[in-house]
Amino acid sequence: MQICSIPSIAKLLISMKIHVPELPMIMWVVLISSIPLNNLLIKNIHPYYINIGRDQHKLSWSRGAAEEAEAVASISCSGHGRVALDGMFIEGKPICQCNSCYGGDDCSILLPDCAVDAHSGNPRFLEPYWRKNAASSTVVVAGWHRLGYTYEDDSYMSRELGNVIQKLHAVVGNANTTGKYILFGAGATQLLNAAIMSLSQPPSQHSNDGGNCLLRTNVVASAPFYPVCKMQTEMYNSLNFKWRGDPSSWKNKSDSSENFIEVVTSPSNPEGKLKDPVLKGASVKTIYDYAYYWPHYTGISSPANTDLMIFTLSKLTGHGGSRFGWAFVKDKAVYERMAHYLEVNSVGASQDAQLRALVLLRTVLKDDGREFFGFGHKTLRERLVKLNRSLSKSKRFSLQKLSPHNCSFFNQVTDPSPAYGWVKCVREEDRDCAAVLKSAGILGKKGSYFSADDKYVRLNLIGNQDDFDLLLRRMDTLVSQE
Amino acid sequence: MQICSIPSIAKLLISMKIHVPELPMIMWVVLISSIPLNNLLIKNIHPYYINIGRDQHKLSWSRGAAEEAEAVASISCSGHGRVALDGMFIEGKPICQCNSCYGGDDCSILLPDCAVDAHSGNPRFLEPYWRKNAASSTVVVAGWHRLGYTYEDDSYMSRELGNVIQKLHAVVGNANTTGKYILFGAGATQLLNAAIMSLSQPPSQHSNDGGNCLLRTNVVASAPFYPVCKMQTEMYNSLNFKWRGDPSSWKNKSDSSENFIEVVTSPSNPEGKLKDPVLKGASVKTIYDYAYYWPHYTGISSPANTDLMIFTLSKLTGHGGSRFGWAFVKDKAVYERMAHYLEVNSVGASQDAQLRALVLLRTVLKDDGREFFGFGHKTLRERLVKLNRSLSKSKRFSLQKLSPHNCSFFNQVTDPSPAYGWVKCVREEDRDCAAVLKSAGILGKKGSYFSADDKYVRLNLIGNQDDFDLLLRRMDTLVSQE
Repeated sequence: MQICSIPSIAKLLISMKIHVPELPMIMWVVLISSIPLNNLLIKNIHPYYINIGRDQHKLSWSRGAAEEAEAVASISCSGHGRVALDGMFIEGKPICQCNSCYGGDDCSILLPDCAVDAHSGNPRFLEPYWRKNAASSTVVVAGWHRLGYTYEDDSYMSRELGNVIQKLHAVVGNANTTGKYILFGAGATQLLNAAIMSLSQPPSQHSNDGGNCLLRTNVVASAPFYPVCKMQTEMYNSLNFKWRGDPSSWKNKSDSSENFIEVVTSPSNPEGKLKDPVLKGASVKTIYDYAYYWPHYTGISSPANTDLMIFTLSKLTGHGGSRFGWAFVKDKAVYERMAHYLEVNSVGASQDAQLRALVLLRTVLKDDGREFFGFGHKTLRERLVKLNRSLSKSKRFSLQKLSPHNCSFFNQVTDPSPAYGWVKCVREEDRDCAAVLKSAGILGKKGSYFSADDKYVRLNLIGNQDDFDLLLRRMDTLVSQE
Repeated sequence: MQICSIPSIAKLLISMKIHVPELPMIMWVVLISSIPLNNLLIKNIHPYYINIGRDQHKLSWSRGAAEEAEAVASISCSGHGRVALDGMFIEGKPICQCNSCYGGDDCSILLPDCAVDAHSGNPRFLEPYWRKNAASSTVVVAGWHRLGYTYEDDSYMSRELGNVIQKLHAVVGNANTTGKYILFGAGATQLLNAAIMSLSQPPSQHSNDGGNCLLRTNVVASAPFYPVCKMQTEMYNSLNFKWRGDPSSWKNKSDSSENFIEVVTSPSNPEGKLKDPVLKGASVKTIYDYAYYWPHYTGISSPANTDLMIFTLSKLTGHGGSRFGWAFVKDKAVYERMAHYLEVNSVGASQDAQLRALVLLRTVLKDDGREFFGFGHKTLRERLVKLNRSLSKSKRFSLQKLSPHNCSFFNQVTDPSPAYGWVKCVREEDRDCAAVLKSAGILGKKGSYFSADDKYVRLNLIGNQDDFDLLLRRMDTLVSQE
């Protein structure tokens, strides 16, 4: 570029003895316009080449990965799908992961006669929030980040993440964490089995000789309930505990020769109602699963303040696949047993998940959760209103009744916005409600899955917008055929 | 910037009727030099703004996170530490996480009288490789990446990662995966308890009534062994299995009324020797933990080809905190029970860990593992040679003897390069070898932890270079005092 250095251009012009008025007009235009172009380039396109403070510098080792991530994300899937960085490739090209009932290379084709998936509890409704807040919620992880098993304090838990979680609960006002120990696990699921395992061990008795197999703690939950605690308890087939089902048989019984662990999810799954334990007393320990006790799902009337509280990232931010949850535990001995369980079961929760959770929760907290919870609640509220409107015309189906609740976070009484619709087939002859809906192209989860009657079916309201829109259309069609 | 658009500048000049020769010389210089400046700006500083094919484009939402990651990584910790993106901050400034026995703000101070940590199994020796291969091993994750619980095929496992793992084993030649099912878990730790739980369930008998508490599968492992299988078995206190310790009592017994699960780690922890099961027969199921069956730790004589093989990312790449491992299972019923366990225990392995594993393993495979395994083996070989040299002068300590092995990966006989030194105090009076080393400022793991005599102690050889250098110095000092 020697000819283009400043002194050489000046010399060239002088040597050419060009009388400047004779330069064509276009040259003047080019010369004159290049100054503002310089200005534009320098100011607006190079913010990270201008060393403003210590925070901006030229990208090196992370650039390629950042470009790849953005290139993949920019592939259009018609708004009905997305390309994942670790998704499937065909002939070297990443393919769109379409929302259910959409197909084609770019997910633009609505598949006819496709049953809408309202069966799973996949929490995808917050995607628009995360796309809007892309910059702050991106995580860049170096290859050498966090080698080894432990953090700086030799624990399996990120202290910074623990601080952010405490702050989140303080801001939202949904949990009193003072004086409680915090534990991390691979989702509420793992923390639940850690809790059951830990609460069921008698403090002074550890039996490994098979002799006490009939003196087991009874694990109970009142229907309808999500059966993971039942599945775990049965699978472990432990000498320490046993699944006993519904607690109502022991209600109001003062006989404390048997020990109980009651699992209470509040708001509940599938109904979305705030729930209290059935059993009380010295021989009863209660595990509270507060997966849904967030402003998107319910009014926050007061901070939860029980001895064992479990929360999960899955239902808070939608990142169900990260496998990250946390628990607050009051009793030190229980905390230590749970910590031991989590170490022996899986050496704690993934540090990659912990880093991701940290970045996501910092994003939520950037305006004290206003935008995040506002978006979440608004989305789910609208969905319930629409579903209610659809079913209000029906004499065949009914939806669970939920009350508004005072919400200290939104500073007002908030209308219901549950994660699920709990639909009942009211006609005598409709004994299998899931089958009735399936014949109309709606896949829901049958009532018996929740230890309830099959006249009930659970419909997912926290899926993506396509899933809900399709669910509503099918519901409207079904109702219109009555 | 309206005044700076090309047509408006031209009009402005014309309206001002400026006779161009009267413009000062400095203006000519500025005008003329701005063209090459634009050229320079566009071409050399914006490589990713010029759309060269589909791979390069302007960075937007990922830029801030990439800058932050690089800024944090660029903070100097004197080569004796690092700053983690999710590490601790003081007054808004990230602080260096120093290697053990180093301190000060920038980890430049070697702390006097500090005991070197050779106690843990923290695998940090591969950090130089990951730093060198920073670009290909960086992961950039968008906030909306993988919401929900499942992948495209409704499973909890990344198919792309499964393919890369299969390729890795084919390239390294350390496992025959043909005809086997693959499972992912939160590390080998979780897969181990999934395997024990699944192998111990009689196919046609599921007891939940407490009546069969004495007919439990015996879980055994031959000493010395890493006791996680013992800890898990005892903690679960299951009706299905029971910890029985060393298998040698049942060796060569043809009585098959009892069922056994033998856990075999090969190469073994702590000795680093290739190990065979003690028990054989129809009533015996064997779980093989191949955590160390990689070219950095041992010659790969042939592909492992057993019915249940467990591998882990922790000891392969050093990313112990990710919590990711995989298993190959031959029997379909066992595979299905393990899959059920993994779902009920934690809903599979973290998808964040799976994405990270995918990127890391692709980096390893970019030259068919030559650089990666070459570096790993060379590092550990040199460490063993130095430790051997140090202890060869000693009459007080001895090191485990290991043989060279033929290695199909390196196409030669490779010298031993184990993960741990298994040191023995040979003097009669040195009954607690860990205490002897501790008095010399070396923390090792005592033999009884591995169900061996306390005349043995395990020393970590897979820590970072500072840890090993300090270990060696302390050992040299101790030996010189004999």
